[in-house]
This record gives sequence, structure tokens and C-alpha cells, in this order.
Amino acid sequence: MGQDSNPVGVLLIVKNYTGDRLNFGLAAERARAEGISVAMVVVAEDCALSSPDKTAGRRGLCGTVLVHKIAGALAAESKALKEIAEIASSAVKSMGTIGVSLSACSLPGRGPSFHLDAHEMELGLGIHGEAGVKRMEVLSADETVRAMLDHMTDPKSDSRLHVGAGDNVALMVNNLGGTSYLELNIIARAAVDYLGELDLWLANYCLHSCCDESKGVTIGRAYTGTFMSSLDMAGVSLTVMHLDQRRTSCLDADTSAPAWPRAALSCISDRPSELSVEDTKGCTSTGDGRSTSRSGDGTSSSWSRVIESVCKALLEKECELNALDTSAGDGDCGSTHARGCRAILKWTATGGIPDCGDGLLLGLAAVLEEHMGGTSGALYSLFLTAAAPPVCEYTTPSRWVCAIQAGIEAIKRYGGADVGDRTLLDPLCAAYDELKSLNSEDDWLTYLGNAAKAAEVAAERTRHMVARAGRASYVGRTRLVDPDPGAVAVATLLRALHDTLLLAPRTP
Amino acid sequence: MGQDSNPVGVLLIVKNYTGDRLNFGLAAERARAEGISVAMVVVAEDCALSSPDKTAGRRGLCGTVLVHKIAGALAAESKALKEIAEIASSAVKSMGTIGVSLSACSLPGRGPSFHLDAHEMELGLGIHGEAGVKRMEVLSADETVRAMLDHMTDPKSDSRLHVGAGDNVALMVNNLGGTSYLELNIIARAAVDYLGELDLWLANYCLHSCCDESKGVTIGRAYTGTFMSSLDMAGVSLTVMHLDQRRTSCLDADTSAPAWPRAALSCISDRPSELSVEDTKGCTSTGDGRSTSRSGDGTSSSWSRVIESVCKALLEKECELNALDTSAGDGDCGSTHARGCRAILKWTATGGIPDCGDGLLLGLAAVLEEHMGGTSGALYSLFLTAAAPPVCEYTTPSRWVCAIQAGIEAIKRYGGADVGDRTLLDPLCAAYDELKSLNSEDDWLTYLGNAAKAAEVAAERTRHMVARAGRASYVGRTRLVDPDPGAVAVATLLRALHDTLLLAPRTP
Repeated sequence: MGQDSNPVGVLLIVKNYTGDRLNFGLAAERARAEGISVAMVVVAEDCALSSPDKTAGRRGLCGTVLVHKIAGALAAESKALKEIAEIASSAVKSMGTIGVSLSACSLPGRGPSFHLDAHEMELGLGIHGEAGVKRMEVLSADETVRAMLDHMTDPKSDSRLHVGAGDNVALMVNNLGGTSYLELNIIARAAVDYLGELDLWLANYCLHSCCDESKGVTIGRAYTGTFMSSLDMAGVSLTVMHLDQRRTSCLDADTSAPAWPRAALSCISDRPSELSVEDTKGCTSTGDGRSTSRSGDGTSSSWSRVIESVCKALLEKECELNALDTSAGDGDCGSTHARGCRAILKWTATGGIPDCGDGLLLGLAAVLEEHMGGTSGALYSLFLTAAAPPVCEYTTPSRWVCAIQAGIEAIKRYGGADVGDRTLLDPLCAAYDELKSLNSEDDWLTYLGNAAKAAEVAAERTRHMVARAGRASYVGRTRLVDPDPGAVAVATLLRALHDTLLLAPRTP
Repeated sequence: MGQDSNPVGVLLIVKNYTGDRLNFGLAAERARAEGISVAMVVVAEDCALSSPDKTAGRRGLCGTVLVHKIAGALAAESKALKEIAEIASSAVKSMGTIGVSLSACSLPGRGPSFHLDAHEMELGLGIHGEAGVKRMEVLSADETVRAMLDHMTDPKSDSRLHVGAGDNVALMVNNLGGTSYLELNIIARAAVDYLGELDLWLANYCLHSCCDESKGVTIGRAYTGTFMSSLDMAGVSLTVMHLDQRRTSCLDADTSAPAWPRAALSCISDRPSELSVEDTKGCTSTGDGRSTSRSGDGTSSSWSRVIESVCKALLEKECELNALDTSAGDGDCGSTHARGCRAILKWTATGGIPDCGDGLLLGLAAVLEEHMGGTSGALYSLFLTAAAPPVCEYTTPSRWVCAIQAGIEAIKRYGGADVGDRTLLDPLCAAYDELKSLNSEDDWLTYLGNAAKAAEVAAERTRHMVARAGRASYVGRTRLVDPDPGAVAVATLLRALHDTLLLAPRTP
């Protein structure tokens, strides 16, 4: 770079390693010999070494990235070289970094630079594959962050960073290379939490010199990502830098540097509020015994009897369904249905089930979603939720047929399966085909009987079908010789429904 | 979320897995039952499976992140839900993703979800720990990218993405979790390169339907980072999406989402130009025999004789210096000096060394920087470079003393060492202390003799010093019983310099 192309000069930001200082120093001297203005800022914010011995010195670590950002923003403002170097050097003195790792890095083509057992971790390491200052037993994320920040702020350490109540800091949580983002963000959260706690501790510890009221360390800016890595090292470093107005505005200044993140405090501190599964509207009542009936032609107790009867029929099939599922899936179809049935029985036993059609279905959906689990739980919940609106105002037999239709459509739409795919849709659609021709509402029980029969035939026919959806689709077709257990469950359910209503006939 | 808080409605962006579709479908149905407008976009851009069988279906992979960005930008523009859903769905149809991995991911607390040998890699995997469609031998980065993009665009595959000449695409290079950024960026470069090549191939392959002149695939936007990971999986996925004006402006729209990167094309395609070590200004001439002398009181041939003599003295000490270094360092101090000396001898043998003072020093600095290597090479280069300016115009003995002072200061400044730290500064400063009192320029050879003697004494004294800089500082002091080899080398050098000039005295 010639002098003419940059009349202001060149700033060298150098990490504090002997070789780096010498070689960049050589470059600086050579540039000066050519008449170019050169300033050098040496970054040495490592808090690993606690001895004041000059031997190894404080290394330059991830804080260098913050120095680059600050200097870059000042350069973009056309500040003078000397001023940029001074502000950058002052930032270096206001920051500290500490790293921890679960593994060494491997130089390309070579093995790991040092060995760590599975139960060990290394505190205070550098970024060139060198080992750290302390080997420790692996701790939880919270304990690890505590050990890191305690070391960084240790009053007995010569390289410590002072962090106290009321301080406003930037926090950089850096992936040393091979850490998953799941872990990285757990560490970030732990660091945010502990900086507050740490502050409380310091406030108590030195109460006479601090203000009486602990305010906590303010994390003005937080950045999480891969900023300065050590190849594939599975580790993380924490950098804390005191913020003033100028540093903050430099960090916030717009840049086109692809690796510079957007400030991420909000994503760390904004915890999503818990959403309740029970939070459904409509006339659903689950447990308090009150319900707003808009279609009171069924009663809570009559519904309970029918539902209990169906559940018992499915519970009796638990072993049979599991056996059918063993060749096609993981052998738990009967157990899953049994789990759902037991949850429903517990629910009906409270005596507070809704007596309106949509309330009943949405209540059942909520119970199954929460307790049945698996794809089956989702399928039944989906069916019941989609089936609810048609029976919101009236629960005539033809409305129930509409409800079944709506449920089937939802399963097709979201499940991506259709008739003939060897799923519960086969008996369900066969039953619906019988029901949809219902033309006299008085004769509905006959239609339901036909539907149950059709469902049983359809379930049996799945024996010869190729699985094209669901878990069975991943299994070689030669292994599938039994009917689909989900289809058998639906046929069982419809049969039980019909038989119960036949014994105690009333409009459902 | 109630209806009132969001009158426009809710868009669900769902990856195409059965469980996801069902559960989000359930949520959609429940929300609709509450009167909330809901639209759902299913992302299925996986290019792994080549069979048209509906069995497993195309999965939703990293392209989902692009869909989120596009839909988010449109929502920020207050577009209607229906329009957002349509544009997002259209984007899904215009993209493809393919992944490759060197390892399985490990669910927390469990082992890897599948096993890969060290020489194997898996093509076309998902993000939930499921294995891929093809196991292959590990290839180079270029070959791996070629295999991935060939699979993605394979004309025989039903899930392929059409990419051809003149297309404008966004490229997303995604870390599946445990890939180092070094590797990630190598993959990104390979992908950028191959998309052009691929295009050339396609252009030739279907020349009749394409334009005659290949323009290459334009990579309108490129993003590299960790966008959709599979825990700690050491792998990478490539997503290619066709760009139109609206998609591009949506990708470019400002966002506060911390994980969304700045578009990174420039950092991939701007290759830094090679900088030549030889590119030094001044009167340096290295090889062509011409030089601009500004201070011709030395000649090229007389310099050569002195330099050769010093080099030979150091070469004779090679074994001795190595032996001294064995207890303190890695035993190569003599070899390093010998390597530097041989390079200098080769340089002087060309006959084209500069005959001006600064040209000579800068020439020597360049040779040592390039050929000597190690910290010693950097130290000598730094000394010589910093020493050059004082002897730019005049090469009187007092100017040479100034040059030595400047060199020493540079070593102290950048090396972080001082007298007494058991380094080459000990003999160098001892020599300078003799030279700096030079008061008669005629008597300079006497002063140089005193300086050489002082350097020898100082080098010998390093035997009793504690190392506080350089590699020896990491060694326990009890092991250091010999003088510092670097210090001995400098003493040797000064002795040889004096003795050579004594035998053939002339103003240096």
C-alpha cells in the first residue's frame, strides 16, 4: 500500500504474541521507512495467567475483535490515526477474556495439540492450540461459567478485570470452533445470569466501598457466535469489556463486515412466556365442573359413559396393537393408545367434561395432545380439533358426519397421507363413505353400524398395502404382513362406539 | 396470541416432517377455531432423495431460514397474509439444499446417532440425526462440493433444482454444528467456484437451448455461517435459491434478528492480491546488479567480503549453537542461523547487493525474513529494517552507531524484552554501550573491538540469567546452565565483523 493511497496512515492491531509483535513490528518499520504513518495497538486482554511474572505475558484473544470494530468505526468517521490508536488502546485496558475447552484443536493433517480425557476440561487456553493454565473436571454449564468469570475477576490475579456494581459492559460469547450453538447459547445465558450474581456478591463483599443498593452489572451489548476460533476446538471464551458512550457507539456503528453480528442482547434476555396447552377458548371446561352448553342435547354423564366404553375397548387391545406394531414400528402403538385412554378416563372421572359437541372434542384433543404423545397423539388431536367447529351449535347426526369429514380432511392436509397408504385413514374414510350417505337422521345407528363394519374390513385390508406414510414407510415391504395397528385401533374405536350406543341408544 | 393483538393473522413456516406438519396443523386448526387467520407454508427443499416415491418426502432443511427472512421482510412491509404465504411458497419451490457430514450428531447425554468411520462421509442427511442417502469415501473440499452440487442438480433426480447459465442465485453455506470456520469458508469458496464451472458444463451440455455465450451462474447473495445446525454434527449444507427482485430485496431488508448475517459475497469473491516480500522501496537492488547509490563510501564488493566472512563464522558455530539451544529451546538455533547465512551468501554471490547503507540493510532484512524463519529471522529483520533509515544518506561510523541504536530500540519495542532477560539484547546492548561513546570517527575500529569484547562477556553472563522472554522463558530455570545461544550468535557475529575489518581496514 503506497503512501498516496492512504494519507492518514495505517493502524496495526496486533495480538500479544512475541512472533506477532516482531513480525508486525518489522512491517511497521518497513512502512515507516517508506514514509507511511503507522501506529500499532497490542491487544493483551487474556485473564488466564494470574502471576505478575512478565514471562508469558497476557495474550491477545477474542477481545481483539472488539478492538477491530471500535477502530474500524473510528476510521470510518475519519478520526486521526493517533486518536484511533489511543481509543483502541484504552479499550484493550478495559477488557478481559477467559476461555475453556473440552477438547484440543487439531491442526489440519495432525492430531490434537494436547490430550483431554472425556471428564476433563481446560481453563484459560490460547487460540493457537496451546494448553491452558488449569485442568479441571468437567462442570455443568452454570458452574463452568462461574469458574471462568471467577478466574477473570479474581482479586488475587494480576491479570484480572475489575467488574463491579453498576458497571455497563459488553459481553462476547465466542465459539472456539467446535461448540454447538445449543451449548454456546446455554453458556451465554449462564454468563448473563452470573454477571448479575457476581455483581451482587461483589456488592456484598465490599459493601463499604460500593453503593448500598446493588444494581447488577448491566450487559449493554451481548454478542454470541464464532468470532475468533481455534480451528475445531470444542470450547468457548467469554470477553467482557467496559462500555462508555464512545465504545458503545463504535460497536453499534453500521458495517458491511459479514462476520460482525447484530447486537444480541434482546435474544438472550427476552424469555418467551410459557404457553399453556389448556389455553383453549370455546365452551371447553376441564375440571371445574362448569361449562357453557350451546347444544345441550347430550349430557356430560351420557358422553362419559360412551367415552369410557370406547377407552376400555382400546385398553383391552393394548397387547394386540403392540404386537402388530412390532414388525412395522417400534412396538408401542397399543401402549400409546392405552396412555391416551387412561388420560381420558382420568379426565372423565372428574365429572367436569363439557356437554356441548365442540367443547367435548376440543377437551379430548387437549388431553390427548398432552398425554398420548407421539404421532398418534398429534393425529387424534388434529382430527378432534378440526372436527369441533361443525358441532359447535348443533349436534345432530348429520353435523357429526360433517365433523368426521372435517377431521379427515385435516389429517390428509397436514399428514400428507391418503386412502391406500396403510394408515388410520383407511378405516376412517371407509367409515365416512358409509356415513356420508346418511339421508334419514332417525336411522343413524344403522349407518354407524355399517361404518364400523366397513372400518373393520378396511383395517384388515391394510395387511396387503404398501406403507407410504408414517414410520412404517421406512420399513421394507416384505416385513409388513399384518394389518396396520393404527388402522386396527380406529376400527376398534368405531366398533366400540357403535356397540355402546346400540345398548343405550340416544342421540349422541 | 389473541386475535386482537394481530388482526392480520399468523403465518406458520413448517419444515416438511410428518410430526411437524401434524402438530403445527393442530395449532393452526385450534387458532382458526378461535377466529385467528392462519396460513401455513411447508418448506420441503431437500434435494437428497432422488426417487419420486412419496414415502419419505422432501425434508425442510436450511432453506427454511431464507423463507423466514423473506416472509419476515414482507410482514414488516405489512403485506397481506395471503400474499406473504404465496411469495414464501414460491421461494420454497425455487430452492434446493444438500448436506454432507463427517460425523453424526450426538443428542445430549447420548452417543452419536449413527456411526461413520474416519474415512467416510455421509451425503444428503437431515437435521435430526438421521443418516443420509449415500455413504462415501471422504473427498477433498472441492470434490465434496462437486458431489453435493452434482447431486442437487442431477437431471435424473426428481428432487433436483434446475440451475443454469445466467441464473441469479443466493447461496447459503451452513455449518451443521461442529465444522470449523476454516473448513466452512473453504467449502464456501469451492461452492462459489463450482457454481460457475457447473454452469459452464450445463451451457455446453445444452448448448442448443442456452445462449451461445456462457455467463456463469451469478451468485447474487452469499451467506456463510451457522444457520440451521444439527447439534454438534461436523458437516455442512449448501442451499441454492433462485433470486428475483422481490426475494433479493427481502433478503437485503434490514432486520434486528441477531442470527441473520450481512450478505457476504464480497468476502468470498474478493481475493487479496499477493504481496511480494521483495517489494521494498529505497535504493535496494536484489539481483539485477543495478543500484542507486546515495552514499557511495562503501562498495558492493567490499560489503560482500565482510558479510561473507561474518556468515562463515556463524556457519562454523552451527553445531555449538544447536547444542546450547538443546537445553533451552528446540535445539535449532545454529541451524536457523546457518539457514540465514546460506541465504545471505547466495544473495551476495549474485554480485548485485546494494552499495548504499540502507539498501544493504533492507536487502539483508528481506533475505532473512524470507529464508531464515522463526523468531530469530523476525528479530534480525526487524533490527536491520529499523537500522536502515539512519544510514540512508551517510554511512559514517557515528551513523552506524545510530543505526544500531535504532535497531535495538525496535527489538525492545516489539519484542517486549530488555537487557538482563537472557536474550540477544544482552550482547547487543553491551556492544552499543561501548560504541555510543565514540568521539573520534578515526578510531572507530578500536571501539568496535571493545564492543565485540563486551558482547562476548555479556553473552557469557547470560549463563546466570533467568529467561524472561522468548521460548527459554517457558523452561524451568534449573535446566538453564549454558549461555543463551542467540546471545552467543550475536557475539560471534560482532567478533567476526571486527576481525574482518581489522584485517582489511576501511571505512565500512
